[in-house]
Amino acid sequence: MPKVTDEHRSSRRRQIVVAARTCVIEQGFHKTTMADVIRESGLSAGAVYGYFKSKDEIVAAIADDALSTIDQLFEGILASDAPLRPIDAMRAALDHVVRIAESPDGDVTRVGVQAWAEALHNETIMATATSKYRLLRGHFAAVARRAQQDGTVDPDVDPDYIAQVLFGMIPGFVLQRLMLGDVTPESYSAGLAALLRSPDRNPA
Amino acid sequence: MPKVTDEHRSSRRRQIVVAARTCVIEQGFHKTTMADVIRESGLSAGAVYGYFKSKDEIVAAIADDALSTIDQLFEGILASDAPLRPIDAMRAALDHVVRIAESPDGDVTRVGVQAWAEALHNETIMATATSKYRLLRGHFAAVARRAQQDGTVDPDVDPDYIAQVLFGMIPGFVLQRLMLGDVTPESYSAGLAALLRSPDRNPA
Repeated sequence: MPKVTDEHRSSRRRQIVVAARTCVIEQGFHKTTMADVIRESGLSAGAVYGYFKSKDEIVAAIADDALSTIDQLFEGILASDAPLRPIDAMRAALDHVVRIAESPDGDVTRVGVQAWAEALHNETIMATATSKYRLLRGHFAAVARRAQQDGTVDPDVDPDYIAQVLFGMIPGFVLQRLMLGDVTPESYSAGLAALLRSPDRNPA
Repeated sequence: MPKVTDEHRSSRRRQIVVAARTCVIEQGFHKTTMADVIRESGLSAGAVYGYFKSKDEIVAAIADDALSTIDQLFEGILASDAPLRPIDAMRAALDHVVRIAESPDGDVTRVGVQAWAEALHNETIMATATSKYRLLRGHFAAVARRAQQDGTVDPDVDPDYIAQVLFGMIPGFVLQRLMLGDVTPESYSAGLAALLRSPDRNPA
């Protein structure tokens, strides 16, 4: 039996993940079967099951893949020497969302929306989603702490609360983009900037 | 044949909507069948089909029901004589979300999340969702215009962009509440208020 290289395995695995993503984007999570994924991937059933035992495992891999560049994104945001402003972090995050949404492999934000619904009735997907979302929100908490140090955000509020709101603006961006089709990183950032720079806004 | 009063019809209709909501909350949209709704409602199949032809129609009715008190909520927000601050409108909206989520008839925000996913593969649900969301976002646009008049928000930005962000904070609140379980109207408002009153935030 020929020795399968790591590179070969990794490439096959990715082929399956992309096939599953295509199926979920086209049909939704529920209608997608392992048979659909196998057909779409062009591999044998044995090959596919060699990598993933179930749809739930593939969804976790789609999430890993979609979020693989997030650490790097936030490293870049935090690397700047200039005072970090939440609006700049938000703009970078929104640009990133649109970049991955416009991937030629299909709009992975559509898979995200499916995963939200599925998580409410599927413990495996819920576990995947909560761990990913804690991680993502943790990045925004790091942004909040840095902004508090830099003097661009009120230092007297729990940075985790600030992270809840910053992270919390992303799903609404994703949904409006998919359902109403009229939001862009530019419009959303402009709306947020208007709120943030308003006069006489919010006495402590 | 006895004359069925409007009140009787309305009460029956509501009985079906509540039954369907219970089913969707427990099983999700996809697994819920008309037979489940009929069983849960305790009515005959003929009775249920006399009100609703399909699951899609019932979902629209669940949305109508969940949003029935929204106009009133925003009328209250806009009625105040004091300068309207976006943070106050947001707090009122979040309190409202939690109030309807904690209804004894079940957490309708779970049905909302199901509807987001379903909308991506179902034109009827998409049409319902987009019309509801345009309406909701329109309420936030009214808040933005009023806040701009009152001098609590930068008047030089399109109020529709401000509405995108204010409305856009709600799905992230709903998801974090359902999936991470640690957000409250208090924590979310505190995080937003910290961003809004921060010094040297966002030069125009």
